[in-house]
Amino acid sequence: MSAPQDYILITGGAGYIGSHTVIELVNNGYKVVVVDSLVNSSYDAIARIEYIVKQPVPFYQVDIRDGEKLNEVFQKHKITGVIHFAALKAVGESTEIPLEYYDNNVNGTISLLQVMNKNNVKSIVFSSSATVYGDVTRFGDNSMIPIPEHCPTDPTNPYGRTKLVIENILRDVHSSSSSEWKVAVLRYFNPIGAHPSGLIGEDPLGIPNNLLPYLAQVAIGRREKLSVFGSDYASHDGTPIRDYIHVVDLAKGHLAALSFLNKTNEGSFREWNLGTGKGSTVFDVYHAFSKAVGRDLPYEVVGRRAGDVLDLTANPTRANKELEWKAELTIEDACKDLWKWTTGNPTGFKIEGYEWKLFETEGHANRLHTFTTGDVTIALANRGALIQDLSFQGEHLVCAYDNGDDYKLPTNPFFGTNVGRVANRIANGEFKLNGQTYKTPKNENNNTLHGGLVGFDKRNWLGPVISKKEDVFTVKFALIDEDGHNGFPGDLQTIITYTIEPTAVSHEYEAKLINDKVDATIVNLTNHSYFNLSGEPTTDDTDVTLFYDKYMEVDDKTLLPTGNLIKYPHATANVPVHLDQDAFFDYCFIVDEDGCGIDTRKSQLKPIFKATHPRANTEFLFSSTEPSFQFYTGDGVNTKGFVKRSGFCIEPARFVDSISFEKWAPQVILKKGETYGSLTKYSFSKKQ
Amino acid sequence: MSAPQDYILITGGAGYIGSHTVIELVNNGYKVVVVDSLVNSSYDAIARIEYIVKQPVPFYQVDIRDGEKLNEVFQKHKITGVIHFAALKAVGESTEIPLEYYDNNVNGTISLLQVMNKNNVKSIVFSSSATVYGDVTRFGDNSMIPIPEHCPTDPTNPYGRTKLVIENILRDVHSSSSSEWKVAVLRYFNPIGAHPSGLIGEDPLGIPNNLLPYLAQVAIGRREKLSVFGSDYASHDGTPIRDYIHVVDLAKGHLAALSFLNKTNEGSFREWNLGTGKGSTVFDVYHAFSKAVGRDLPYEVVGRRAGDVLDLTANPTRANKELEWKAELTIEDACKDLWKWTTGNPTGFKIEGYEWKLFETEGHANRLHTFTTGDVTIALANRGALIQDLSFQGEHLVCAYDNGDDYKLPTNPFFGTNVGRVANRIANGEFKLNGQTYKTPKNENNNTLHGGLVGFDKRNWLGPVISKKEDVFTVKFALIDEDGHNGFPGDLQTIITYTIEPTAVSHEYEAKLINDKVDATIVNLTNHSYFNLSGEPTTDDTDVTLFYDKYMEVDDKTLLPTGNLIKYPHATANVPVHLDQDAFFDYCFIVDEDGCGIDTRKSQLKPIFKATHPRANTEFLFSSTEPSFQFYTGDGVNTKGFVKRSGFCIEPARFVDSISFEKWAPQVILKKGETYGSLTKYSFSKKQ
Repeated sequence: MSAPQDYILITGGAGYIGSHTVIELVNNGYKVVVVDSLVNSSYDAIARIEYIVKQPVPFYQVDIRDGEKLNEVFQKHKITGVIHFAALKAVGESTEIPLEYYDNNVNGTISLLQVMNKNNVKSIVFSSSATVYGDVTRFGDNSMIPIPEHCPTDPTNPYGRTKLVIENILRDVHSSSSSEWKVAVLRYFNPIGAHPSGLIGEDPLGIPNNLLPYLAQVAIGRREKLSVFGSDYASHDGTPIRDYIHVVDLAKGHLAALSFLNKTNEGSFREWNLGTGKGSTVFDVYHAFSKAVGRDLPYEVVGRRAGDVLDLTANPTRANKELEWKAELTIEDACKDLWKWTTGNPTGFKIEGYEWKLFETEGHANRLHTFTTGDVTIALANRGALIQDLSFQGEHLVCAYDNGDDYKLPTNPFFGTNVGRVANRIANGEFKLNGQTYKTPKNENNNTLHGGLVGFDKRNWLGPVISKKEDVFTVKFALIDEDGHNGFPGDLQTIITYTIEPTAVSHEYEAKLINDKVDATIVNLTNHSYFNLSGEPTTDDTDVTLFYDKYMEVDDKTLLPTGNLIKYPHATANVPVHLDQDAFFDYCFIVDEDGCGIDTRKSQLKPIFKATHPRANTEFLFSSTEPSFQFYTGDGVNTKGFVKRSGFCIEPARFVDSISFEKWAPQVILKKGETYGSLTKYSFSKKQ
Repeated sequence: MSAPQDYILITGGAGYIGSHTVIELVNNGYKVVVVDSLVNSSYDAIARIEYIVKQPVPFYQVDIRDGEKLNEVFQKHKITGVIHFAALKAVGESTEIPLEYYDNNVNGTISLLQVMNKNNVKSIVFSSSATVYGDVTRFGDNSMIPIPEHCPTDPTNPYGRTKLVIENILRDVHSSSSSEWKVAVLRYFNPIGAHPSGLIGEDPLGIPNNLLPYLAQVAIGRREKLSVFGSDYASHDGTPIRDYIHVVDLAKGHLAALSFLNKTNEGSFREWNLGTGKGSTVFDVYHAFSKAVGRDLPYEVVGRRAGDVLDLTANPTRANKELEWKAELTIEDACKDLWKWTTGNPTGFKIEGYEWKLFETEGHANRLHTFTTGDVTIALANRGALIQDLSFQGEHLVCAYDNGDDYKLPTNPFFGTNVGRVANRIANGEFKLNGQTYKTPKNENNNTLHGGLVGFDKRNWLGPVISKKEDVFTVKFALIDEDGHNGFPGDLQTIITYTIEPTAVSHEYEAKLINDKVDATIVNLTNHSYFNLSGEPTTDDTDVTLFYDKYMEVDDKTLLPTGNLIKYPHATANVPVHLDQDAFFDYCFIVDEDGCGIDTRKSQLKPIFKATHPRANTEFLFSSTEPSFQFYTGDGVNTKGFVKRSGFCIEPARFVDSISFEKWAPQVILKKGETYGSLTKYSFSKKQ
């Protein structure tokens, strides 16, 4: 292994501002570790971050008050700095349960600082708030508006007081060994908006406290109308003035603070306002968001709210100068991004019909995701983006282990998983491409099978990113297969999209070369589920219909294609075959003798195979855009809980070992700039 | 059992101010529970408190940050209010290790409040500090001197900031349910002095931060001279002015605050200064203490100290009015009490040659105290104030169990313990006194033996209070035996004083009736140690010499005295007896046929018994002021680790069953106003 990488620890990295900051850090080459208790946030944010940045982000579900657990994280990673978000943050709530606020925020920080001290990590960026200034209009004249950092602090609620206490603790800690501690205190004004990807954003539990989240819920129909608290202030439209800053600008402010600390050699303690310096009224924001939504949203002007004041605009000059940071996005940008996030995720991260659980003894990298819509339930795991359960009207249709660790058994016959970079065999573990010869691991006899030693099936895929329209789920997993891994050329990005409908499930592959390392590679992807409709330990008595009866002749010894496509002797197209002891299959049947291009999604989806069982109600139809499919009766299966013929496989894909045959090679050669694609669909109906 | 008693929880009750407050509370009828982590304090303070107030004070060694342990205390006792002292309190140290200060003080309080909340205890008196005001001279004019509670807060060090944070937390908690929480914030000025008893006081670890403790160490010779930081202030003598308040006055302030809270029916939050309102300069205090010591103490004027200001005097009017409390003691009183504490405890609670450990599985009530001086080592336990070890030049001389729990074995033959209220037998378990008949438990045949079912030997004695002059320890234990307990009349207070010298140990009994419940009771006390010089399992071969050979004739069946004092047939005064199988003793030998008065300490200390052993070096001489002594060869012993004749007893006391014989009764009848007393001494020398 290479030397340990420097990591930045992000506490509360699953939260609104935290998650956006993680993205900015990773996109700027930082390695980050996230700890979050998830009491007020969702791990889905992390999963989506990993999907967005296309790399894993180490995550630990830790309450920072648990010094022991937190310390373990410092043991596992070489942490050089901390950005500290973890906190409770609802002003109103803080007046009702102040102890919880002091405990979470203040105790939490003390615990964090003690662990940092213990591990000699003495660089911290702290997530403070403009709330520490309190009501700056108390100075009568406008001497303190826009608010500078030297403005005296006097928070008016427990939440604000916890932030101020923490600032003081940090100041005292810095003073206690001022040569060592580097402390950046960032005082936020009003963060708004969401990530332009539309994949992460603010996901308030309960009734939102802030203007825009509330407005968004009005727009999406979760709230009736916006209440405007007072329109008799001395502003251009009578509503109070605040400094709204796009959360992405805010996130970048942390990056700026971090590099500031990295640049200084001795210790330091400094506060910076993060704001735009431009005040906007409630109505300004209202209009901007209505514009983004495309219609005027319902609102009502009600009485002033206790504690509200006319103007709380930041003076961000210090940050502009010292951090060389400036807010660049507009309220319009924020409203656009917020609306994208809101429409894509009307209920935030929580999606009805979807739930997940940890699937391995340790960690979040491999979770099990269960989706239910209409008659279909499907469970997908990150490992191999595999199908762990597939049921129609309560009938379970695939072979699976009940826990993630079992999938690592050497006897696992690729249950439910997606295989690649090249499914099926590569003769003699080598191939030629653009005049160059590539060697791949010989993991089956003299050949390479299903992508080699650590194929796509043995990797934890990133994501998923889930969306739901009406009763249809779209679930995306991503995998980056690095150049040279298993001997294949080029960084390959693969995205698999499961579409889950009330009576069907389809999965679509999309792969392309990234990072310009090579001009071409080879790809052949398929799903390797073992199907069994019977509800019994064996598939015997299953009636199957192949819609095609030509197959690839193979050499009996090497099991490699001879190059001939001939009629299969023991079956006939569209004539049902009763699976009994004599009916053995492990052959590639041909849908299109002419093969195909690199993206078969352009060609039509054809029925290829059908299965029923006398003692089951489900009729199972397989369709695909692929030019061939392997039909395997699972005679080699022998693993925990399953034996010979426990399930059969239908693997739509490119011709077996295409790369070894000039005429078939184009099916699997993916050139830079092109996209590999294919689509396979499982349709279910009640047997007539 | 009776209904649960209401308790006040005192956190940090073993500390300087805490311990004095506990005394005031108990003396005013409160029941208190003390929790203290003892990191900065000593359990000896609690032991001495119990000795002073003559009752047990429940104690738990708990760090209040340990919510679980703290909650157990709330489960064990019905707590109705809390006085919260527990905190780190050294200003200078707080600037070096601020995190520990925030953790101990702030986290500690949050944890305490959470446990209180959980147990629905919502009344708290908080130990704050005038430090929260910071440098009040910052207001230029003297508008804030003397300092009123409305003076703006701005502490200048982490310690002060922890106190202010806690005040804010308490205010927020009160506001969150203002009808329920009752909060009293007491801001102390400069506590000085010690308890008039001289038994408890300030015991600073390391170099004292404060003027008087430092001055006291100069006086006692632990420090060379006092440094006076600046004599060029605008005061009458050029030294800064502070508000020094006697710790006992301060303690009473807590009592006043507590009754204030008890009086108010709805919730409340209020700050009060606890000070005298009278400023004194450093030199004022210096002179007052020099006067108490009786000589001028060495000092040197050095430069001003950073952060020092001219005048920090309290305005205590609010406390005077609202709490009806006023500081009444003078600086002179404080200096006198401090000097008494200092001379009596030159090294504070830590005494060279003394150490203690817990002696039972649970709790501090029964500790084992070991003292070493010269050739003598003795270990004393609170249970029965018993002697667990007694050695001379490394030769162990008494029978003992090695842990406190074994002393509760039913087979324990009174090892090392002090027996009472009436040692030896009371015929037929009843006696007449002032015409009234009292019945006592018949715990041996038809008689009462050694005070009945739960005699003095089975009680945990209070204390000890230990002092050391040159190489002599004085160790006092106290026991209150309640009226009617075991059938005896009157509340009897017994104090046993062990005097431990380099070659001798003596123990002295002093008992008197308290609380005026009866005119008279009966008392007869003795120590029941089993001696064995041999270092072997048996006392056989021991050579003993009785200095008297008359004894109390007893009835063979009842073992009760016949009333005759006659020559003992099988031994002669001053003629050594070799203890072999034939030599059996369980008789009371007579030192003075005329008996004695109730306090034998007035008569002389007479040698009564001597013992040596051929294979041991120690010569053991017993002397006593008592008129008789029981000599018992331990033939009835049969307990864990010990059998017949493992040790012999010498029990100097009053005549057996005196109360049943008119002529002897005066020996044991203790009248109100009189004092029962006796003295017994063990002297050791190296055998010639």
